[in-house]
Amino acid sequence: MRTEISTLGEFGLIRHLTEGIEPQQPSTRYGIGDDAAVIACPAGKQTLITTDLLLEGVHFDLTYVPLKHLGYKSAVVNFSDIYAMNGTPTQITVSLGLSKRFSVEDMEELYAGIRLACEDYGVDIVGGDTTSSMTGLTISITCLGEAEPERIVYRNGAKESDLICVSGDLGAAYMGLQLLEREKVALSGAGKEVQPDFAGKEYLLERQLKPQARRDIIRRLAEEQVLPTAMMDVSDGLSSELLHICTQSKVGCRVYEEHIPIDYQTAVMAEELNMNVTTCALNGGEDYELLFTVPIADYEKVSQMEGIRLIGHVTKAELGCALITRDGQEFELKAQGWNPLQEKE
Amino acid sequence: MRTEISTLGEFGLIRHLTEGIEPQQPSTRYGIGDDAAVIACPAGKQTLITTDLLLEGVHFDLTYVPLKHLGYKSAVVNFSDIYAMNGTPTQITVSLGLSKRFSVEDMEELYAGIRLACEDYGVDIVGGDTTSSMTGLTISITCLGEAEPERIVYRNGAKESDLICVSGDLGAAYMGLQLLEREKVALSGAGKEVQPDFAGKEYLLERQLKPQARRDIIRRLAEEQVLPTAMMDVSDGLSSELLHICTQSKVGCRVYEEHIPIDYQTAVMAEELNMNVTTCALNGGEDYELLFTVPIADYEKVSQMEGIRLIGHVTKAELGCALITRDGQEFELKAQGWNPLQEKE
Repeated sequence: MRTEISTLGEFGLIRHLTEGIEPQQPSTRYGIGDDAAVIACPAGKQTLITTDLLLEGVHFDLTYVPLKHLGYKSAVVNFSDIYAMNGTPTQITVSLGLSKRFSVEDMEELYAGIRLACEDYGVDIVGGDTTSSMTGLTISITCLGEAEPERIVYRNGAKESDLICVSGDLGAAYMGLQLLEREKVALSGAGKEVQPDFAGKEYLLERQLKPQARRDIIRRLAEEQVLPTAMMDVSDGLSSELLHICTQSKVGCRVYEEHIPIDYQTAVMAEELNMNVTTCALNGGEDYELLFTVPIADYEKVSQMEGIRLIGHVTKAELGCALITRDGQEFELKAQGWNPLQEKE
Repeated sequence: MRTEISTLGEFGLIRHLTEGIEPQQPSTRYGIGDDAAVIACPAGKQTLITTDLLLEGVHFDLTYVPLKHLGYKSAVVNFSDIYAMNGTPTQITVSLGLSKRFSVEDMEELYAGIRLACEDYGVDIVGGDTTSSMTGLTISITCLGEAEPERIVYRNGAKESDLICVSGDLGAAYMGLQLLEREKVALSGAGKEVQPDFAGKEYLLERQLKPQARRDIIRRLAEEQVLPTAMMDVSDGLSSELLHICTQSKVGCRVYEEHIPIDYQTAVMAEELNMNVTTCALNGGEDYELLFTVPIADYEKVSQMEGIRLIGHVTKAELGCALITRDGQEFELKAQGWNPLQEKE
């Protein structure tokens, strides 16, 4: 079934897509339906705001990304930014630009993903804008969050001798992307009956198509009373993010290749593709893991926390930022992360 | 001179464009440069949030809209939504999608307009996202504002017998657009030396290219201690907005053709184009004037305020929404406002 969006119009479409949304956050005072949404400020908290613009053909390829997954991911990547400040995401606005190619049913799928992500993380959809587009699909999401001011963690607080930690594992989302791209090419000539074979690589696909924001890590750190000195989420690649933290904190760092967490499926896929798995972990984007530094006094606590790996330590700025390989060599870290504004080689 | 954006990359471009921005709002605690911006909540206030997505070829045509004006307008239309809640805009985030056609200098122009609007209205740029685009220019702006909860004005508070007021005049922005479109067609075959003749129509162009948000009206209402019962800004056309207020307030209305404020230039242009000027004022969009209702007890105050016109009154819902023409006929109001998701006739 295909219902043209023009049959509903802008307001009708928004009403249809947001029907039955009940606010979950006590701070949401008025959501969709006026010139602006109204949010209460909980006593003693500050507001966090982050935004992401996703464009078809640049950030996603609808030939292999289902719309529901795209919606889910679009929301979650914003939540990840709020957690990376040690905050809690509370509300989002969703703006969509749609070409005539898309039907009401397509938008229901996309919104189902956004709504599911919001349910999973307790976030309210409070507004947005929906318009036609001359070309593909445009998704712009802005996320609000809240945090106690004294618990907000910036990128600029890392101190010499701090430990560098990362959650989960790295490089899998990038390998998932490679896998999808490979199957796309392989299947482009084939008939519809040929199904791609992803057996044994489900984790890579899940990491690429349905990433999670690490709310669990933020909660665990709070329970253990560990307050990171600096933190950010790994969206452009570990190297790039480490350099951000070091530049903004005016420090250097040493990270150890052998400690970088890599999943078994990531390693197998890298070998299949004849790629260096460490390079994938350092420069592959979209992991949405948390990279953070803690005082050395927290060593006992963080070294015992499940899902967190110590990968190195902070140094004086003069020592620069380097990777120590398994055989003890030092390589300067460079940001080769995924940057859509720079030409690909 | 043309500098390719790829020479700066995403972070370099954002740094370059936002260089020297000093926060003006006391609530701005941390702006650009981390995973999220941090905003303090002033005691006793609530936060307002609104967002707008502008796409090339749908919302603007760069053959006649200068980038600086486009930047200015993109910001101001968001401020207008915050004023329409009786709030004060405080911060914006700016996301841009840029095709290779655009240079660093182009983005400097666009940003110069956004920064000028922010200076004019005392708003801080606290974040954003910049990415490449396969096609044209995408601008997504989200605006935060603040207001005392008991002074926020929604669309749903209009009561029977309230007076309906509108600021400024209507239809001029739409006439400005018609003028620009006409000159574009006329000049498309001509050489570069031919300059369009806009003499005597400067006001129409200004209303289309550099609209203002009516902060002055909001301040005047506060000074006179008039608190509207319902309010919104006129972005899609007076008819459409009146219907929003009436539907959400569960009331009807009567507006009088003879009281709808229309500028002399608008009337002249409508005649030139053989269009009905009232239709232009009712259905032309982008005026960014304020439409509001006040209790009849405020008649004395509002009738004496400069720049505000009483255009009608609120009725019981059963009476519907109608325009009373100069010769006393009643016509049902219909939303024929500019709706990019519906097919043009």
